[in-house]
Amino acid sequence: MDIPTTPPVPAATLTGLLDGRWAHVRRDARTRMAAAPSPRTYDLSTEQHRAQVLAELRALAASGYPRTGFAKRHGGGGDPGGFLTAFEMLGFGDLSVMVKAGVQWGLFGGAVEALGTERHHERHLRAIMSGDLLGCFAMTEAGHGSDVQHLRTTATYDPATAEFVVHTPHEAARKEYIGNAARDGRLAVVFAQLVTGGESHGVHALLVPIRDEHGGPAPGVRIEDCGRKAGLNGVDNGRLWFDQVRVPREALLDRYGAVAVDGTYRSPIEGDSRRFFTMLGTLIRGRISVAGAAGSATKSALTIAIRYGLARRQFERPGSSDEVVILDYLAHQRKLLPALASAYALHFAQDELVATLHELSDPAHADSGDDDPRDRRGRELESRAAGLKAVATWHATRTIQACREACGGAGYLAENRLPQLKADTDVFTTFEGDNTVLLQLVAKGLLTGYQQHLHELGSVGMARFIAEKFVGVVIERTAARSLIDRLVTAVTPQDEETDLLDRGWHLKLFEDREEHVLDTLARRLRRAGDADADPFEVFNDAQDHVLRAARAHIDRIVLEAFVAAIDRCPDQDAAALLDRVCDLHVLSTVEADLDWFLGHGRLTAARAKAVTGAVNALCKALRGHAEVLVDAFAIPDALIDAPIALGAESDRQRAQSSRHGVALPRTEDSGKAAAP
Amino acid sequence: MDIPTTPPVPAATLTGLLDGRWAHVRRDARTRMAAAPSPRTYDLSTEQHRAQVLAELRALAASGYPRTGFAKRHGGGGDPGGFLTAFEMLGFGDLSVMVKAGVQWGLFGGAVEALGTERHHERHLRAIMSGDLLGCFAMTEAGHGSDVQHLRTTATYDPATAEFVVHTPHEAARKEYIGNAARDGRLAVVFAQLVTGGESHGVHALLVPIRDEHGGPAPGVRIEDCGRKAGLNGVDNGRLWFDQVRVPREALLDRYGAVAVDGTYRSPIEGDSRRFFTMLGTLIRGRISVAGAAGSATKSALTIAIRYGLARRQFERPGSSDEVVILDYLAHQRKLLPALASAYALHFAQDELVATLHELSDPAHADSGDDDPRDRRGRELESRAAGLKAVATWHATRTIQACREACGGAGYLAENRLPQLKADTDVFTTFEGDNTVLLQLVAKGLLTGYQQHLHELGSVGMARFIAEKFVGVVIERTAARSLIDRLVTAVTPQDEETDLLDRGWHLKLFEDREEHVLDTLARRLRRAGDADADPFEVFNDAQDHVLRAARAHIDRIVLEAFVAAIDRCPDQDAAALLDRVCDLHVLSTVEADLDWFLGHGRLTAARAKAVTGAVNALCKALRGHAEVLVDAFAIPDALIDAPIALGAESDRQRAQSSRHGVALPRTEDSGKAAAP
Repeated sequence: MDIPTTPPVPAATLTGLLDGRWAHVRRDARTRMAAAPSPRTYDLSTEQHRAQVLAELRALAASGYPRTGFAKRHGGGGDPGGFLTAFEMLGFGDLSVMVKAGVQWGLFGGAVEALGTERHHERHLRAIMSGDLLGCFAMTEAGHGSDVQHLRTTATYDPATAEFVVHTPHEAARKEYIGNAARDGRLAVVFAQLVTGGESHGVHALLVPIRDEHGGPAPGVRIEDCGRKAGLNGVDNGRLWFDQVRVPREALLDRYGAVAVDGTYRSPIEGDSRRFFTMLGTLIRGRISVAGAAGSATKSALTIAIRYGLARRQFERPGSSDEVVILDYLAHQRKLLPALASAYALHFAQDELVATLHELSDPAHADSGDDDPRDRRGRELESRAAGLKAVATWHATRTIQACREACGGAGYLAENRLPQLKADTDVFTTFEGDNTVLLQLVAKGLLTGYQQHLHELGSVGMARFIAEKFVGVVIERTAARSLIDRLVTAVTPQDEETDLLDRGWHLKLFEDREEHVLDTLARRLRRAGDADADPFEVFNDAQDHVLRAARAHIDRIVLEAFVAAIDRCPDQDAAALLDRVCDLHVLSTVEADLDWFLGHGRLTAARAKAVTGAVNALCKALRGHAEVLVDAFAIPDALIDAPIALGAESDRQRAQSSRHGVALPRTEDSGKAAAP
Repeated sequence: MDIPTTPPVPAATLTGLLDGRWAHVRRDARTRMAAAPSPRTYDLSTEQHRAQVLAELRALAASGYPRTGFAKRHGGGGDPGGFLTAFEMLGFGDLSVMVKAGVQWGLFGGAVEALGTERHHERHLRAIMSGDLLGCFAMTEAGHGSDVQHLRTTATYDPATAEFVVHTPHEAARKEYIGNAARDGRLAVVFAQLVTGGESHGVHALLVPIRDEHGGPAPGVRIEDCGRKAGLNGVDNGRLWFDQVRVPREALLDRYGAVAVDGTYRSPIEGDSRRFFTMLGTLIRGRISVAGAAGSATKSALTIAIRYGLARRQFERPGSSDEVVILDYLAHQRKLLPALASAYALHFAQDELVATLHELSDPAHADSGDDDPRDRRGRELESRAAGLKAVATWHATRTIQACREACGGAGYLAENRLPQLKADTDVFTTFEGDNTVLLQLVAKGLLTGYQQHLHELGSVGMARFIAEKFVGVVIERTAARSLIDRLVTAVTPQDEETDLLDRGWHLKLFEDREEHVLDTLARRLRRAGDADADPFEVFNDAQDHVLRAARAHIDRIVLEAFVAAIDRCPDQDAAALLDRVCDLHVLSTVEADLDWFLGHGRLTAARAKAVTGAVNALCKALRGHAEVLVDAFAIPDALIDAPIALGAESDRQRAQSSRHGVALPRTEDSGKAAAP
C-alpha cells in the first residue's frame, strides 16, 4: 500500500512533545547526568559496584532531587510528577542507581510518609531525604512474593512493656530480596501480621532497626546477602530474619491502624483486607517508576541498535558494489521499527499516568470516602499503573533482546551496553508485582465496580468475587475523550472499505476487541457461581482469557494516550510523522493478535493480509525517519556510551564500504574482472 | 476437549529413547561431568574465569574426548557422531568450556583437518587434539561477519621468497571476536583473499602464528582483547591485525587450492565461490554443535523452572487453606509446557541431524562429484543444520527467558543458574551464522536444486539467482518416510472432522503450509526477473515471506523427526506419553502461526478456537507428567546445581505450606476465626 510521505522533522520538535509537562526536570536531569555519568560497571566486582552506586546515591541526595516527591509540610517539594519524571530519567544511567534510589526514597521513604504519622515524619523524613538514614522496605517473604497479604512475619503487642515483638516464625517467612539490606540499610519498614490481645488485624508496617551504629546486625536480627544477580549488582539485596525482636509501640506506622498502650486496636478503615490494600497504595509509585525506567532503558537500546543499523552494511546490492545498510533490510526494520513505534506509544501513556498520579496526590484526598469520584480515579490509576507496568516491562525485555540480536556480536560486547541493559531490566517483569499477577488485577478491575474483594490479588479473590457478583463492562475512555468519540462513531471494525490508516477505525477495533473479550470472559467466569462448579477450575481454565482481557484493555489505554499526544502536537509536520508512527504501533499490535481479529470475524483474510503489507510499507516509510525518532529521545552521548552508536565504528564502516584507497581484488562472482 | 490419559512412565524409559544411538557417550559424559562439575563462575573476574576454563579444557583434552571427532588415520576416533554428542553434553556444564572446546577442536582443529593436507595433519593434529597447541579460527572481520565471502584480509604470494604476505588493509578488515585470540591461542587459521601473480582466487585459509613462545604477539601481529561480554566470559575473544606478516608457502591449507613455488594457482574445484563454500562445509559441525548445546542449556533451564514450579505455592485455593502449586496455574503451564514439548521435538531433530552427518562423514565422500546422491544429501544436511541451528537457538533464548520469569526473583539470583544460562546462550542466535541469514540460506535451498549460486549467502545471490532460474518446489520427506506417507494420505488440512490430535492431519497441515508458502514465494520472487524490476527491492519486500518459508520447512523437518522417534519407541506407555507431548508441540506451533492458518482457509474460526482449547487441555493433561519429562533429560544434580531445583527451597516451602507447628493468626478474609 502507499503510505503518505511526511516531510523531515527536526528531532528537537519531537523532543518538545515527548518532554511534556515536566520538561524542565528532564532537561535538568540530562545536564546533571551527562556531567557525571555513571562509570562503566561491567568489570566491577559486586562490592566495587555497590560502593560506586552508594556514592552515586549520595550525590543524588546532595542534588536535592529526592525531596521533590515528599510533601511540602515534611520539607519536600510537593511535586510527585516531577519526582517520578526524575526517576524515569535515572533509567538512562546505571539502573542500579535508579533501583537503589527507588528503594530509599520511593519505597522506604514513601512508606514512612504514607503509612506513618507526625512523630515518624518529624523523626525520620529529613534524614531519609538527605540520605543520612538509609533504609529498607521489608515486605516480600521467601514464601510470599505476589501474595503479600498472606505473609507470615508477626508483630505481637506486649502490653507489659508497651512493645511489639517482631518475629520470623519459620524459614519461608524470612524477608527476601530486600534492597539496601545486605550492606547499607539501618532501619527497615517491616510488614508483619499485627497481633494484639490474641487477635490478628492483618498486615501492618513497623520501623525496625536492622543495624547498629557500627554496621553490625541489630540484636535478634540476622542478615544474609542474596549475592550475585543477573543484573542490578549495585543494589545490595539481602535476607532478614527476626528472632523476637522488640521495638517500642511507637515503631508502628499507625496512620491506618494504631495500638493503644493497653493493646486496644483501632483503625479508620474497616476490614483487614481493605486496610491492607489501602496501605499497598504506596506501591503505585514504585510500579510507575519501574515502567518509566523500563521505557528509558528501552529508548537507550533502540538508540544504540538503530544508529548501528544505519551505519552497519552487509552484503552487496545486486548490480552494484555498494553494500546494503542493514536497516534497509525489511527483516531488520521489522526487528526494530514496530518496537520503536510502541516505545513512543508507551511514553505517552506513561506521561498521562504520571500526570494523573500528580493530580490525585493532593494529601487531602488520601482519606476520602469510597464514593468520591476522585477515589474512583484512584482505583483506575492503580489498575492502569499495574497494567502499564506489565506491558512496558515486557516491551522492554522483548525490545532490548531484539536490539541485542540486531547488533549481532557487537551487541554482545559489554562496551556496547546492551548486555547490561538487558540484564538490569530483566527482573522488572517480575518485581514490584509479577506481570502475570498484575494483569489479573487489571482484569478484575475491569469486571467490576469497586468493592472490598476487588483488591485481593490472585485466583482466590478473583474466583470468589466473580462467583458472587458481576457488574457489566463499561468502556471508560481516557484522554482526549471528545476527539476520540468523534473519531470512532463513523466506523465499524468489520468495515473493509475503511482506510487501514484510519485512526477512528483503529480506536474502534481496539475498543471492540476489549468489549468482546471482557463480555465473553464475564460469561465464562459466571459459571464459577454454579452449584457444581469448582471456582478455582473455572477461573484457572479461563486464565489465558483473563490475561488477554487485561492486555486488550491496556492496548486501548495506550493508543488513546498516543492519539491525545498527537492531538496536542503544535507542529503540523511532527504530527504527520507521529501519525505514521502511531499507524505502525497500531497495525503491528493488530498483527501480533491477528488470529483473534481473524477468528472473531473482525478482519477478513484479505484485510489481514493487507495489515501485514501495511506494516511492511510503514517500516519502509519510517526507515528514513528512524534516526530522528531516536534522536528525539535526546539521550546525551555521555549516557549512550556505546562505541557502535557513537560514530567510531560507523566511520570505520564507511571507510570500508566506499573502499577508498583500498585496492582489493574482486572475486569472480562479482561479475567483474580481477584487478591489480 | 478430552485428552486421552496416559499411564505414568518411568523417567529412565524416556531417557533411553532420548539418549539414542550415542547413549554410551551421554552416559560417560554424565559420569565424567558430575564427578568434576564446573565450579560456579558468577563471582569470578574475567581473568579468573578464563583461567578456570582453560584448566577445564586441559582436563577435557586429557580425557581423550576431543580425539573422537578426528579421522582414525590422523590418530582420531573416527566417530563424528560421538564427537557432536559429547559437545551437546558439554552444554550441561559451563558453556564457556563448550565454546572454547568448539573453537579449539571443532573450528581450529576441524579446519586444519578438512582444509589442510598431509603435511599439516602430520605436523599439527596430534598437538591440537592433546591441547598442546591451542589455536584460533580467524574468519570473521569487523566489517564482514555474515558476508564472509567478501572479507578483506589479503594473503599475497611472493615468489621471490616463496612466502605469503598476510595483511589487514584497513580497520574494518581486522579479525573480530576470535576465540582463543586474546589469551591462549598460538596459531590461527586465517581466512584471507588469496592473491598470486596479481590475480585473486577468493578466500583461502592459512596457518599464521600469532604468539611467540613467551606468549607475546608474533612480529607484525597486533592483538586486542574484546573484553567483557554478556556471557561466555571464560572464552578469550580477541581482535587481530596483520601488518605484512610473512608465512611460508606451506602455511596455505591447500586441499582445495594450492600455489606452486612459481606462484601458479591450481584447485580441484572450479570457481572461487564454489570453492569457498566447499571450504565453509567445515562450519556445519559448528552449527550442529551450537544447536545441540542450546538444547542442553534449554533442558537445564526447563528442569530448574519446572521443579521450582512444582514446589512453589502462591495464593490459596478457594474454600481451602492450601496454597496452589504454581504449575497448577494454566498461565504457568503455558509458559513452560509447550516449550518443554518443543524441546523434545528439537532433541529428536538434532539426533537425526547428528546421525546424518555421521553417515556422510566417510572421508571418501568429500571430493565426490556434484551429481552423487550423497552430495545432494550433503547439501540437505547443510541446509538443515543451518535451519535447525536458527530454530533451536531462538527456542533456547525464548525458553530460558520464560524460565527466568517463571521463577520470579529466585530466577534472577545467580545461584539459581538461569541468569548465566540466558547470558551464555544469548549470542547463539547470532554467531556461527546469524539466524536471519541462515534462514535465508534454508529458503534458497528449498527453492532450487543445486547449482553454483545456491551457496551465496545474502540478498545478492538470492535475488540474482531467482531472476535467472526457478526450479519447482519438492517436498522431500525425512525420517520414517513410509510411516509418514501412510499417515498423511488420508486427510486434508481443511478437514474439520479430523480429530485435533490426528498425527496425519498434523503432518499434512505442516506439509501443506510449507508447499503453499514456498509456491507463493517463488511466484513473488520471479518478478525479480522482469525488465523493470529492481531485484533487491523484489527480494527485500518479500523478506518476511522468505523467512516464513524457511521456518515452515524446519517445522516440518522437526515434526517428522519427532514422529519417527515415537515410532521407534519400544515401550507402549512411553510412546503414548510422547504422543501427547508431540500433540502439544504441534498444536502450540500451529497456535503460534494461527493467523496464517486462519487467513489461508486451513482452519475455520471454530477449529482455531478448538486448537487453543486443545493446547490448554494438553497442558493440563501433561502437568502430571512434567516432573518425569524433565527427569528424563537425566541431568545430574551436580550439574543442575540450583538450590531452587534441588529440594532445599522446596522443603522450606512445604514446611510453610502445611503450617506444621506454626500457630499463626488468620486474617478475616480467610473466612475463619482468628486463633492465637
